[in-house]
Amino acid sequence: MPEIRQNLITREWVIVATERAKKPEEFVQKNKEKKEIPGYVPTCPFCPGNEDKTPGEVCRIGSTGKDWKVRVVPNKFAALSREGDCKRRIEGIKRSINGKGIHEVLVETPIHNMTTALLPVEQVRCIIEVYKNCFLAAYKDKCVEHVVIFKNHGEGAGTSLEHPHSQIIATPVVPSQVRERMEEAIRYFDDTGDCVFCRTLKEELEDGDRIIWEGKSFVAFIPYAALSAFHTWIFPKRHAASFGSITPEEMNDLAITLKTVMAKFYYGLDNPDFNYVIRSLPLEEDEEECYHWYLTVVPRLSKVAGFELGSGMFINTALPEESAKFLRETKLPF
Amino acid sequence: MPEIRQNLITREWVIVATERAKKPEEFVQKNKEKKEIPGYVPTCPFCPGNEDKTPGEVCRIGSTGKDWKVRVVPNKFAALSREGDCKRRIEGIKRSINGKGIHEVLVETPIHNMTTALLPVEQVRCIIEVYKNCFLAAYKDKCVEHVVIFKNHGEGAGTSLEHPHSQIIATPVVPSQVRERMEEAIRYFDDTGDCVFCRTLKEELEDGDRIIWEGKSFVAFIPYAALSAFHTWIFPKRHAASFGSITPEEMNDLAITLKTVMAKFYYGLDNPDFNYVIRSLPLEEDEEECYHWYLTVVPRLSKVAGFELGSGMFINTALPEESAKFLRETKLPF
Repeated sequence: MPEIRQNLITREWVIVATERAKKPEEFVQKNKEKKEIPGYVPTCPFCPGNEDKTPGEVCRIGSTGKDWKVRVVPNKFAALSREGDCKRRIEGIKRSINGKGIHEVLVETPIHNMTTALLPVEQVRCIIEVYKNCFLAAYKDKCVEHVVIFKNHGEGAGTSLEHPHSQIIATPVVPSQVRERMEEAIRYFDDTGDCVFCRTLKEELEDGDRIIWEGKSFVAFIPYAALSAFHTWIFPKRHAASFGSITPEEMNDLAITLKTVMAKFYYGLDNPDFNYVIRSLPLEEDEEECYHWYLTVVPRLSKVAGFELGSGMFINTALPEESAKFLRETKLPF
Repeated sequence: MPEIRQNLITREWVIVATERAKKPEEFVQKNKEKKEIPGYVPTCPFCPGNEDKTPGEVCRIGSTGKDWKVRVVPNKFAALSREGDCKRRIEGIKRSINGKGIHEVLVETPIHNMTTALLPVEQVRCIIEVYKNCFLAAYKDKCVEHVVIFKNHGEGAGTSLEHPHSQIIATPVVPSQVRERMEEAIRYFDDTGDCVFCRTLKEELEDGDRIIWEGKSFVAFIPYAALSAFHTWIFPKRHAASFGSITPEEMNDLAITLKTVMAKFYYGLDNPDFNYVIRSLPLEEDEEECYHWYLTVVPRLSKVAGFELGSGMFINTALPEESAKFLRETKLPF
């Protein structure tokens, strides 16, 4: 019998399609076209030596010239503009606001063909620290209402640029999805006195079936109602509503956890395309009792189709417990 | 200056990325790998003569044997099961319900390489009539709370089966997205006394800039806050909350409208992959003053990436007014 599961945090229903379920091994990207990517591409704007192709560097870790570890630059094809005001217009059904905001790119490494799974932990730590700096800096703009930090890896995940990079987008509105989830979290808190995220983490740890990896300060697991195959959540153990309050020790552990999860994907599923994103409130709302920041990872192993687009429900052809066991048992070479 | 638009019906915010916008012509799928698809494939379970490969035929239009126009069969890899009950379980954070429901496939034509744009209007009419029959039949099952009728065309839209087909999925829960949108529609009705869909249609017709095609009973337009390039809505002019109440005359006009829109895509954008889906309440809620059924079409011309996954906001690199003009002016050979 198939099972329909509800994600308590997002209220999304997911059909866990047991009748058409695949084994974890069937998701291995063996047939994916493998192309040899060189470590340095002279025409790549993110490769060292081409710093002048990305003018207006926002910040960097490392020294001057082409000797850097991480760089942040404005997105050349920015979706939002730093200039102007955040004027709203309401005219009948037409509601809009000027596209004022921030759209930056974080170049994660000088090496063109690198990937999170293979980076040294120190470099991942360095990326996370820059995420934090960018996150805090973005909210200083008084037009900014919400900041999203994310990474697209591979064409199937929506990127055409090979060089490893993340993006920061700061918008002058709070997305309605973020607002709706906040309302659900408040309702859960009203009903139980608990943070729904803390409660989820506690039960997942007790249960154990869906845990991929437990670090000192972070836990990676497949949600009970995972939207798609190998959809993964990384939760901080300490209750905090904002990524902006992450401590130096927590950054060390997040680096280890993120690299480990990425390596589980890389070695276990043969380098699938993926997106990851940090979901967080601003630092000033860090003490919010009912919200909890986290990182979500979505390997792109299947396609969203008409049913998902037309209902907001999902069909997952992988059993979360089996996927978690597979990743838990995936051996890493380090 | 980029613009962020809010869809009044869905409350979704969309960044209309004017700085990185493409011209309508740039979305033409010229570089898509074109493969010759034959009109008949002996191994295809949906081709005539293979009726025994899809046992348990639900209904058909046409006579016996391989002489049929449209067939409905159970999905061989059904996401939901017709058997069992719709028992709910709540155990801590784990909430689930048996995956009882309906998952059927509608084979739209005996011809393997056909597509909606090229089908005779009578055949499209016939498909719509079968949609209606399946829709009404599904709600007869007392476990069924919501029915979604959709079509996936092309690999980019999530299908691996070439033979033209649609699907019907009936679930024992109302998706939370459907519930949230209903609540927004009620709120709009409370505030204005209007159906937000009727109001949108009225303003779109007055404005004219985003209209693709106006039929006798249906209007096709690009929403003001279209989520992605060439995202299209087809609204019935008559206020009705349920597709289940569509009249014979309206079915004629929907057939003409749907074929016309599909042909605009086929000839104007060179046969892009697409999904379409009918969003509707059950027939028994047809008189609901604040809801209005409609059909949404999403050509798959860009990929959803980390920003969309992590915020529920969208970036659209096509200007809705330009896309609508392009389709409005696309000449059809009939």
